[in-house]
Amino acid sequence: MDTAETAGLLSAHFSAWAHLTKEEQDGMLSDTVLTRYAKGACIHNGENDCKGMLLIKKGQLRTYMLSESGKEITLYRLGAGDVCVLSASCVLSAITFEVQIDAEEDSEVLFISPLYLQSLMERNIHVECFVYKTATDRFSDVMWAMQQILFMSMDKRLAVFLWDEIAKTADDTVHLTHEQVARDVGSAREVVSRMLKYFSSEGIVELSRGGIRIINKQKLRKLAE
Amino acid sequence: MDTAETAGLLSAHFSAWAHLTKEEQDGMLSDTVLTRYAKGACIHNGENDCKGMLLIKKGQLRTYMLSESGKEITLYRLGAGDVCVLSASCVLSAITFEVQIDAEEDSEVLFISPLYLQSLMERNIHVECFVYKTATDRFSDVMWAMQQILFMSMDKRLAVFLWDEIAKTADDTVHLTHEQVARDVGSAREVVSRMLKYFSSEGIVELSRGGIRIINKQKLRKLAE
Repeated sequence: MDTAETAGLLSAHFSAWAHLTKEEQDGMLSDTVLTRYAKGACIHNGENDCKGMLLIKKGQLRTYMLSESGKEITLYRLGAGDVCVLSASCVLSAITFEVQIDAEEDSEVLFISPLYLQSLMERNIHVECFVYKTATDRFSDVMWAMQQILFMSMDKRLAVFLWDEIAKTADDTVHLTHEQVARDVGSAREVVSRMLKYFSSEGIVELSRGGIRIINKQKLRKLAE
Repeated sequence: MDTAETAGLLSAHFSAWAHLTKEEQDGMLSDTVLTRYAKGACIHNGENDCKGMLLIKKGQLRTYMLSESGKEITLYRLGAGDVCVLSASCVLSAITFEVQIDAEEDSEVLFISPLYLQSLMERNIHVECFVYKTATDRFSDVMWAMQQILFMSMDKRLAVFLWDEIAKTADDTVHLTHEQVARDVGSAREVVSRMLKYFSSEGIVELSRGGIRIINKQKLRKLAE
């Protein structure tokens, strides 16, 4: 990957880029490294690891918590154009926890080293601000996941609803708007849309203007049980 | 409370204060309101509420998630000098979730209104940076709580250990260092210290140089079960 392409990606997805001096931009470009990962590879391994800030060029990454006994809890997924800063926790005093990150698809990832990120954060408050705002975005993702896991409500309710619908109509597609579904499951449209997006990222449904097509009945049934 | 006292609290605990212009400081002082809460009072009630940024002058607040069915999950506690920004989520695009905040003791809380905070964040990047860094601190608190809740390990293990110790010695105080306890429960000293601090905030133990004194055996036993 050439420097111009790296600069293009950084300027598009790292919003502090425009606030860097020419010297800082050049320094960042020479520090940035592209790494390719095969599907299933471990990218960041909790406390034994500090990869720095990463920007996904291609593919999909899954971030999760891992217990001592090996239990995994998926926190969120990131795709092309997304930035991850939890992998730079060693240089971020406000982040005192560790996560695991795997490649869920063949992925290409840009890395900005932790030491370089740290020096840039110390010099440029726009970089510091970007990093903590990005961390706060992930905080929101995690809180959403926790709501689902701890209160076990919407995912199951929505799965039950979709399962009942396709059983009733003998059609793999549910021809309803998110608004209508929300009314039926007693929730808000935003909540249903977000959950459907999650179902879609899990390969359970396919969303289109025409409705919600179930593409993995087995997974849906498991959720509905 | 007079203006000088408010300014003193802001300058001590709102680290962006020194980066405000005189005009911004004056504006903030005239926007800031002190409110007193009795123990048990609700301070912030999820999505129906947007109180702005708050700074605790006195007392203790508990932040928790609330399910539709009324189930509560404690996320963290804040005390004198701590700042909360989750109560300003309506003006923070990166925060898409809602929490509940109660007073656990009689408390005095300074409020900076959401609209004023928003206008200050737009004008002054140090304020924006402070807000998102504070949110990231809370992210760490929440992740710690989630680790405990989802993986149910250290709290229970530590409670079992303490329970066994006091039964063995017929003494309410466990005369061991955190380091020694950590070795015995197979964990790191930092983890044990943090958990003991949590036990202490829950009124289960009292920590001193001499050791760990159990002050609520019933609560400890319940944890150990």
